[in-house]
Amino acid sequence: MKTKLGGVNALYPSLTVIVGALVEGRPNFIAVAHVGIMNHGSPQYISMGLGKSHYSNRGIKENGEFSVNLPPESLVAETDYVGIVSGKNVDKSTVFELFYGELPAAPMIKACPVNMECRLERIVDFPTHEVFVGEIVQTYADEEMLTGGKVDVTKVKPLLFDMASVKYYALGPPVAQCWNIGKSMKKK
Amino acid sequence: MKTKLGGVNALYPSLTVIVGALVEGRPNFIAVAHVGIMNHGSPQYISMGLGKSHYSNRGIKENGEFSVNLPPESLVAETDYVGIVSGKNVDKSTVFELFYGELPAAPMIKACPVNMECRLERIVDFPTHEVFVGEIVQTYADEEMLTGGKVDVTKVKPLLFDMASVKYYALGPPVAQCWNIGKSMKKK
Repeated sequence: MKTKLGGVNALYPSLTVIVGALVEGRPNFIAVAHVGIMNHGSPQYISMGLGKSHYSNRGIKENGEFSVNLPPESLVAETDYVGIVSGKNVDKSTVFELFYGELPAAPMIKACPVNMECRLERIVDFPTHEVFVGEIVQTYADEEMLTGGKVDVTKVKPLLFDMASVKYYALGPPVAQCWNIGKSMKKK
Repeated sequence: MKTKLGGVNALYPSLTVIVGALVEGRPNFIAVAHVGIMNHGSPQYISMGLGKSHYSNRGIKENGEFSVNLPPESLVAETDYVGIVSGKNVDKSTVFELFYGELPAAPMIKACPVNMECRLERIVDFPTHEVFVGEIVQTYADEEMLTGGKVDVTKVKPLLFDMASVKYYALGPPVAQCWNIGKSMKKK
């Protein structure tokens, strides 16, 4: 029996990231789970949907650059913290040890096992939100997070956010191989 | 030690959905994991990034409507199947038992525990991909998937896709309460 819930967003869980930007010259960080993948290719584009009142927005627009960092389970308190306090009131530049790559206005978090530096490609505008589309310029990962030269999500231990339960979840075990398990149905 | 991987997309895992659309009057379905959340509010907007060569695109553009269905682990073979065969060659209209809500061109999948019917709000255009932004008109869920009237992700058992390992993963256990676990850091 299907129940109507109204037009609520049930596109969860979604991956939790920490977006880094320079705002008035100072590194600022915000936890974001309203992320998106735009395409599959090179250049690769990803999106971050941020309410217009957020402090980070002005830095991203000013510099046209930002970073996207994947926090592991062990950083859940820090991740949550940079999501509940605003850079308008609190200096979040010292919460993490930082490093920089090719983009001077994309501060990245050393303790996050995976980091992407992004150049702002466009802003998709909504009445209350700005969706920042970034072109991934370079991706960094801790060597011990790789398997066969690729990021291993089971090593990263990402945080998955769910709005209904207001909880972060861990990644579970593999279920099946993609582009393979469905082949059995081709015979039908 | 950070290793450079080039501009690869590491925004994984991402939620796997099945997008439904009418193409030339016939229901068609495609597995999509390149999804996104645009805002938080009402109306609520979500995005689906689809390569331009896909058969579903023409139906979504023709009718301005589509559905987003969340497949559970138990439907992994069917989900994968509608991701590897094209509606250009194969009739996928009978893979699932369907139902309709308010939008006549948004066929929904009964066996998926959560379904959203969407009105096309805009298309964000990229050279090789079209990102379809949908306004969620109505959300449906099986009653037994709810806890306190909200969708319970632990009951849904969604499929999380990872591009590097080309695998679907299960959702793991909760890690912490959001907007709460970080409060302890405020004292610092």
